[in-house]
Amino acid sequence: MAFSEQELLALVVSVFQTQASADIFVGIGDDAAVVRGSSQQVITTDVAVEDVHFNKRWSNAFDIGRKVTAANIADVLAMGAQPQYLVVAMSLVGDEGLERVRELAEGIKHEADKTGTQVVGGDIARASAISIAITAIGSVERAITRSGAQVGDGIYISSLTGWSAAGLHMLTHEVEAVHAVHAMALNEFRAPSLDYGIDFSRASALTDTSDALLISCQSIAQASGVNLHIDPALIESAYEFTELSLLAQSVGIDVYEWILGGGEDHVFVATGVDLPGIRIGDVRHGTGVTGLEMKKAPQMWRHFQ
Amino acid sequence: MAFSEQELLALVVSVFQTQASADIFVGIGDDAAVVRGSSQQVITTDVAVEDVHFNKRWSNAFDIGRKVTAANIADVLAMGAQPQYLVVAMSLVGDEGLERVRELAEGIKHEADKTGTQVVGGDIARASAISIAITAIGSVERAITRSGAQVGDGIYISSLTGWSAAGLHMLTHEVEAVHAVHAMALNEFRAPSLDYGIDFSRASALTDTSDALLISCQSIAQASGVNLHIDPALIESAYEFTELSLLAQSVGIDVYEWILGGGEDHVFVATGVDLPGIRIGDVRHGTGVTGLEMKKAPQMWRHFQ
Repeated sequence: MAFSEQELLALVVSVFQTQASADIFVGIGDDAAVVRGSSQQVITTDVAVEDVHFNKRWSNAFDIGRKVTAANIADVLAMGAQPQYLVVAMSLVGDEGLERVRELAEGIKHEADKTGTQVVGGDIARASAISIAITAIGSVERAITRSGAQVGDGIYISSLTGWSAAGLHMLTHEVEAVHAVHAMALNEFRAPSLDYGIDFSRASALTDTSDALLISCQSIAQASGVNLHIDPALIESAYEFTELSLLAQSVGIDVYEWILGGGEDHVFVATGVDLPGIRIGDVRHGTGVTGLEMKKAPQMWRHFQ
Repeated sequence: MAFSEQELLALVVSVFQTQASADIFVGIGDDAAVVRGSSQQVITTDVAVEDVHFNKRWSNAFDIGRKVTAANIADVLAMGAQPQYLVVAMSLVGDEGLERVRELAEGIKHEADKTGTQVVGGDIARASAISIAITAIGSVERAITRSGAQVGDGIYISSLTGWSAAGLHMLTHEVEAVHAVHAMALNEFRAPSLDYGIDFSRASALTDTSDALLISCQSIAQASGVNLHIDPALIESAYEFTELSLLAQSVGIDVYEWILGGGEDHVFVATGVDLPGIRIGDVRHGTGVTGLEMKKAPQMWRHFQ
């Protein structure tokens, strides 16, 4: 092994060392953390596995840490909640080298810091493949589920989806990054920037698009018992659509494959009245998602298929 | 793949389906769970990896689920807290078969039910090896850390440690289970029964012995700035010591290797005055753990060594 367990723990603790906080009564180092709670706690967990959710060849350790953390925090934000605490369970192969583990931990902390979220505990184990399971805990006053969409609501996304899928395509097909738009796609794949700035707190239904925009819309339609009607003309007038569309054309892909089926974007999709973001359609009586019949059915990326 | 992601999710949800509970506002199925919180929340995470923490040849899926869950719940109890919620992140190879996944989930639920703990969320990913990361969340009024031990306190364990290590020895050395004591050791290795019944709520310091009794005592001594003096005569008069000692003799092992260094027992060790359980020594001025100088230094089981 390249390092001892003690060295590893000391390193991770030094990265995550919480600043003195009135909200953390017992931090890293005891059997469990003890933190200030609230009357409604939001809890979510996500596991990312090497060669499935991330790839050492395509992302450095810092970006992997950021990406996994963003995915977890997105799930808390997607309930209309404020993220507060993270615990991180890492399985390491043991040949990573301390420097890579430090970069991974720093990527986690970097992303957590953006929302004032603190890493309060964790566990490290040896395994035959790297995986990172993060649990995020937050507080909420009014949880926004997928089931609150009302007929007459608009459908909004916080930014255009598909950029992460575009970046993945470039990497898997060895497309050279010659234009700024290439760099943008690569960056969104490697370490998607969460749309922290968009205020969806008045939404009637809310989720994130980590699986794919189409799946997110279907889940809202099903949970709310309504029809989500999407207007491609609205998507096509969205900021950055032209850039993404030209990129898709240049590699012979239908851009809707990326936009609707790409996934891994961590864009938020909301229903409601006069929300910020990009309006892409409206909520109607009925079921399922309509309006996209002329668009190519995106290849959905799934585990266990 | 032996099953689709949808089949898998439907199965896991059906096992963990929470009963209508006034404490769970949003259960499995949205971006995150929303639960009733409390002013002091306890959070801990543990990851268990196949061939490191468990072995399919030695434990069935139900017992693996129980064991991993017990380890997490033990960490909450070891803060003097009440476990409330679990989230489970499972990495599966994909060839397990739905029946084994169901058994695993049922083992988790079985152990969670003992303390009224509810599984409120999870994630499933495909990986090259099975691993299970569980995060347990609880509530506490007075957290009992490792740092509260006072000179003059007694040192107590909730039951005799070493049985799990004895079971592991039998499995790795192919010792046949001919006596009741063998079956007991095997059972404690496969699915240790947590000492839920012992009331350590008046303890000054508390931890569990998942790493090893000696490590637990050292951590209390260090965190509290005291000496933990252990009296082997007290250990030797403990309930079940004779049985464990004879078993150790029969396979040529120093029983103290198992008792002090075994680990994986999930027995609790506490300091305090007139506590229940087995008294094994007392807290003195000084540092470290003493009283065991004549005993064989146990081979500590560590990752990354």
